[in-house]
Amino acid sequence: MKINHNIQLTDGRLTHFLNINNLPKSHIENIISRAEEFHENSNSMKYMGKVVASLFFEPSTRTKTTFELATKKISSDFINIDIANSSTSKGESILDMIKTIEAMKCHMFIVRHSVPGTAHYIAESVSDKIAVINAGDGSNEHPTQAMLDMFTIKKHKGDFENLKVSIVGDILHSRVAKSLIYALNILGTKKINIVGPKKLIPDNYTDWNVQYCSQMDEGINESDVIIMLRLQKERMHDALISMDTYYDDYGLNQSRLRHAKKDAIVMHPGPINRGVEIESSVADGPNSVILNQVAYGISVRMAIMSILFDNNK
Amino acid sequence: MKINHNIQLTDGRLTHFLNINNLPKSHIENIISRAEEFHENSNSMKYMGKVVASLFFEPSTRTKTTFELATKKISSDFINIDIANSSTSKGESILDMIKTIEAMKCHMFIVRHSVPGTAHYIAESVSDKIAVINAGDGSNEHPTQAMLDMFTIKKHKGDFENLKVSIVGDILHSRVAKSLIYALNILGTKKINIVGPKKLIPDNYTDWNVQYCSQMDEGINESDVIIMLRLQKERMHDALISMDTYYDDYGLNQSRLRHAKKDAIVMHPGPINRGVEIESSVADGPNSVILNQVAYGISVRMAIMSILFDNNK
Amino acid sequence: MKINHNIQLTDGRLTHFLNINNLPKSHIENIISRAEEFHENSNSMKYMGKVVASLFFEPSTRTKTTFELATKKISSDFINIDIANSSTSKGESILDMIKTIEAMKCHMFIVRHSVPGTAHYIAESVSDKIAVINAGDGSNEHPTQAMLDMFTIKKHKGDFENLKVSIVGDILHSRVAKSLIYALNILGTKKINIVGPKKLIPDNYTDWNVQYCSQMDEGINESDVIIMLRLQKERMHDALISMDTYYDDYGLNQSRLRHAKKDAIVMHPGPINRGVEIESSVADGPNSVILNQVAYGISVRMAIMSILFDNNK
Repeated sequence: MKINHNIQLTDGRLTHFLNINNLPKSHIENIISRAEEFHENSNSMKYMGKVVASLFFEPSTRTKTTFELATKKISSDFINIDIANSSTSKGESILDMIKTIEAMKCHMFIVRHSVPGTAHYIAESVSDKIAVINAGDGSNEHPTQAMLDMFTIKKHKGDFENLKVSIVGDILHSRVAKSLIYALNILGTKKINIVGPKKLIPDNYTDWNVQYCSQMDEGINESDVIIMLRLQKERMHDALISMDTYYDDYGLNQSRLRHAKKDAIVMHPGPINRGVEIESSVADGPNSVILNQVAYGISVRMAIMSILFDNNK
Repeated sequence: MKINHNIQLTDGRLTHFLNINNLPKSHIENIISRAEEFHENSNSMKYMGKVVASLFFEPSTRTKTTFELATKKISSDFINIDIANSSTSKGESILDMIKTIEAMKCHMFIVRHSVPGTAHYIAESVSDKIAVINAGDGSNEHPTQAMLDMFTIKKHKGDFENLKVSIVGDILHSRVAKSLIYALNILGTKKINIVGPKKLIPDNYTDWNVQYCSQMDEGINESDVIIMLRLQKERMHDALISMDTYYDDYGLNQSRLRHAKKDAIVMHPGPINRGVEIESSVADGPNSVILNQVAYGISVRMAIMSILFDNNK
Repeated sequence: MKINHNIQLTDGRLTHFLNINNLPKSHIENIISRAEEFHENSNSMKYMGKVVASLFFEPSTRTKTTFELATKKISSDFINIDIANSSTSKGESILDMIKTIEAMKCHMFIVRHSVPGTAHYIAESVSDKIAVINAGDGSNEHPTQAMLDMFTIKKHKGDFENLKVSIVGDILHSRVAKSLIYALNILGTKKINIVGPKKLIPDNYTDWNVQYCSQMDEGINESDVIIMLRLQKERMHDALISMDTYYDDYGLNQSRLRHAKKDAIVMHPGPINRGVEIESSVADGPNSVILNQVAYGISVRMAIMSILFDNNK
């Protein structure tokens, strides 16, 4: 499916939130600034009576729960569409399902699906009164995760122009990594390293304005920000990489962390695999901002939802 | 189980909503008129602090979600009883389960169950402070679906006295068809045709004040309203009818639709099977009001719930 | 796991609610008195904007639903964490899951888990802004059930000093029985009998200030309160006791009930097994307060939640 990266913009206004790819810098900055307001005072803005429908075709606790909390905090109703028992399991097409839920006068869809571009397809299909947020489309993007990561970096490191950021792990399959790289580039990050076994690096990484390091110590050397990706065991098997070797080569432990700057922050989208991609003492240590990311995730999602509601009025 | 069709009335007031069979015309008109108010202004009436418990012993997304949205729109709380994990799965009787939820001070039960009369049985068993709504009882009735269909017809066609309505499909197993036929008769519909293979028509259809047509073109000839039923594949097998033959004989396509009046409306309770009982160009065409039905479903359910709350005060 | 029974107290204030064991009498009385206020006037106190997360690692409808209703009645939001689809099923530790939900700025966790002490472990691990309620930890305790039982006895029998209370059934495996015995003793109950086959009585019952009766008629003789426990069939098998024998020996029927005082109340935590541990005519008879218990359960849980919110401010 060819993905149109500009559907989320209507006359320059952000009316869906589907991808970081091609998103103007001003929109990213606007989200960060609105999230800052919510973070400081979660009662600062209220959006009454909107109805948000969650359509998670892939299971999720963390992302879905933060969207549910964010929805409630902007005084709106969250409706969980039970996909497993829904009519799509009886052969109804996604489009018919979407049209039906749209007819129920929902104002927003939060969509996660294993097929890249599903959220875009839905955004193209609904009326202009509905805002669609991409909560993960296969291996393509996970833009709200990238936004909360940008918020985290901004909060702990200030501006991006002088930062060295290292992203470590399975870049090839990671939608988080792709959204991150787009966002970091748009925000003018000085240097972006991607680190991991060659088999887990996409061939076209040279298009991304990043540097690839096959060695961990070199990859995180003098970094300000280290973003560890979650290892998905089934994919390691496909790439013929053993877990033991992976941890030896790319696991982030205390001794490796010394290669980064002393005040480097360590991030992870969660859930973490202790002893697989990260050592417990690092995950729980003073450099870790992993739990802060979770908290920021609510403010950032409140910001994105409230901006879309403003723009779809 | 012998079903008592008058449990829903207490001294003439509607205190449950269980069947269209035997329902006085004035109550149907009252629901349509209240739904009209909610449709025009969904904030026109507020019922605070009621608790609505949903008891879906059969899975449903569409009906349950519209009840949930309707509940929230009348400012009440919707509690979803998780039947699969409930104590009925550990051997508790439905009656004990109902009595327990009643003790939790819920004000309304929305019940779907595969056994005809279950909602009636529950209505007979609970205290008079509880209102019960039948959201489908086996092959018996689905009265809120019929009410939203009446609302749809009223809205698009005005009065019933001059209308010809055709209901097409598996009449034998359809609770929607039964509720529809009762409602159309009560509202004085001029002519009701039922259309489908003889094996899917109940023997006692002659009691219903309808005309049976085995041929589709004749069945929908000069109709104002065509209501297509959803085909359930497992039942076709039982009736030894192939899907291909069915679509050839009863599928609603553009060329067949020309037999109906030019301004005929095409309805379907959803979810639709494209290419099984209806052609896509008809489902999405100018005569289709299928998505309108979904939207009206919320106003109609708000109306029924609010009337029951008024009458159970 | 060694369970620390004093984690729930911070400088004498109740900041979690984990066990009846070691709970000062004044706290029990305070809960009963606050529950009485909610029972009389469920609008008497409001707690706005708190977020309550339910973490049920064992399935439950009854307890979870009453917590959900209690949460809504104190104007707070109830978030159901879907454990089956959560990351703990992908190998995330409970502690990481808890820390993540904590980071989402929830104010309270309601925890049910099959391992004794899980709620205590979580209470020790979270920040002091989070209150934890134990909704059942394996065979250890079920303290909110015991509190609603105390409320029931208080309401129907007044003071505990002159009461004879009989608890009948599988004492060995019952967390309800343990919490009950602690609570009855703390409140100064005159006499507590435990009744059941020897194989279902723990060896250390002599530590509990109760009297064991192997014979039902003797065990409930002149009792003011009879608390029947739910029989769990799989455990009968382990103890080599047949259901038939059990009902003959310990089932509460009308003729047996005559051994108790005429105005004795019959209680059961539910769901009841009719004809297994209790005769229908007793469960539904004038001495039964089983459904009252369910209703009180909401007021008692509102009381416990509101006290914890007060103390964690």
